[in-house]
Amino acid sequence: MTECIGYLGPAGTYTEQAALLYAPEATLKPYPTINAVGAAVANSELDAGVVPIENSLEGSVTFTLDLLISQSGLSIRNEVVIPIDHYLVAPRGVEADVVRVIYSHPQALAQCRGYLELRFPQAQNEASLSTVAAVADMQASVVPAAAICPQRATEIYDVQVLDRGIQDSPVNQTRFAVLARADHAPTGHDRTSICFSFTVDRPGSLYHCIGEFSERNINLVKIESRPTKQALGRYIFLIDCIGHRAEPDVAAALEGLRQRVDMFKILGSYPLWEPADG
Amino acid sequence: MTECIGYLGPAGTYTEQAALLYAPEATLKPYPTINAVGAAVANSELDAGVVPIENSLEGSVTFTLDLLISQSGLSIRNEVVIPIDHYLVAPRGVEADVVRVIYSHPQALAQCRGYLELRFPQAQNEASLSTVAAVADMQASVVPAAAICPQRATEIYDVQVLDRGIQDSPVNQTRFAVLARADHAPTGHDRTSICFSFTVDRPGSLYHCIGEFSERNINLVKIESRPTKQALGRYIFLIDCIGHRAEPDVAAALEGLRQRVDMFKILGSYPLWEPADG
Repeated sequence: MTECIGYLGPAGTYTEQAALLYAPEATLKPYPTINAVGAAVANSELDAGVVPIENSLEGSVTFTLDLLISQSGLSIRNEVVIPIDHYLVAPRGVEADVVRVIYSHPQALAQCRGYLELRFPQAQNEASLSTVAAVADMQASVVPAAAICPQRATEIYDVQVLDRGIQDSPVNQTRFAVLARADHAPTGHDRTSICFSFTVDRPGSLYHCIGEFSERNINLVKIESRPTKQALGRYIFLIDCIGHRAEPDVAAALEGLRQRVDMFKILGSYPLWEPADG
Repeated sequence: MTECIGYLGPAGTYTEQAALLYAPEATLKPYPTINAVGAAVANSELDAGVVPIENSLEGSVTFTLDLLISQSGLSIRNEVVIPIDHYLVAPRGVEADVVRVIYSHPQALAQCRGYLELRFPQAQNEASLSTVAAVADMQASVVPAAAICPQRATEIYDVQVLDRGIQDSPVNQTRFAVLARADHAPTGHDRTSICFSFTVDRPGSLYHCIGEFSERNINLVKIESRPTKQALGRYIFLIDCIGHRAEPDVAAALEGLRQRVDMFKILGSYPLWEPADG
């Protein structure tokens, strides 16, 4: 049966590109928020859901971290990494030399700042709510406008491509999490994500937790903190390590950590992403 | 001479409220971005600048962390903590029972979701680019509209207050950093912020760094990671500990850490915020 996979919409976003790459045969369904994707997976409306979790320039997507911390019945089953390749588009008939306003999400505008200053010094930058909303804002503009958007949006909307790959940094990549009701079986090349917190904060608490990995020579690839939302200065820690929770040394480290903390949750073990051409 | 203090504008934001609380006698000047505040402090255009650094619900303000990491000649001189108290406002003559659209920044809308669903189930929520832009969006609306904004905005704009304190969580607080060209002298009740990174990632690297604090019984109050922007999965760590960098044990921990890492920067030592009425 065809899998039904949700993603953070609307159609045309980088998340849709990631979902298409992950499951080209699946039925894809856009959802308005990251929380809506998570809820639809947890209540079995979807087989899986794709949401952004981390960008190489912007860092973690905190909505996704908070969803993983708080929503029960949700695991990370896979990760997908795609390059962020910004396209510059305009309505048909509007050429680059007449563009006076350029719309995009503030992050996309910031990521293309060098290009825009060099090539469009006269154009005003205008913030839109998303890189797809930018295309609509551009189409509604009374002065000649352009928009910065994903490649996928150029296939969906009737626009002409003025340029592509206009981001200033060559290392702009986003990692997406595929959420499901269970995580992945071991493959030998896996990553495990967990979160935990302490009720009482003592010097050395976090040190001894990290020691559970260090003493078993398990590499931590990420450590992050999120507010508990109970008080300023109280945190939930999120850690990613190399290995699957079913491997004996990882299992022992997780059990050691579980005994040191007050809240502990395994967010999932899943295969490390391998680029198709790498 | 009156101090000239910049803040993340526009006028009417929570950051202006924090700046007014920190320096009621100073000349205050709004800047369009966090980076612009930082640059104006570093080049001596300002004596100091106020920017948000952390919210109890949303977590760290990553633009501020990235500014502190990358901008030279900038230290944290103080912190200011204020409660986030959302106001619901409308144009004069528009009463609550006719409101059909409510504008605000997506974070403010999310923080008032329970209240809005209960009291304004028929009203559509519309995202604005800031809580102050929401007031302008409300004023431009052709259907009866309201906006969620800071108390300070109600003093500046000609609006009527429909309700206040409409946030769902009672623990919504934001911590602001006062940036200057030097940090603060020791007071005996201080906090120190640092950042560091490793060129090569080995199991245990972070563990041994945190151990420098743990073995001296120095409490870490915050650990955070930010992307290096060189590659996905490479991080700069930010740590806050209790104590001033001039205290012998803190100085020894910082020196021990400095020798273990490839990049190391003290972001500042500064007094812990004491509420006026606490």
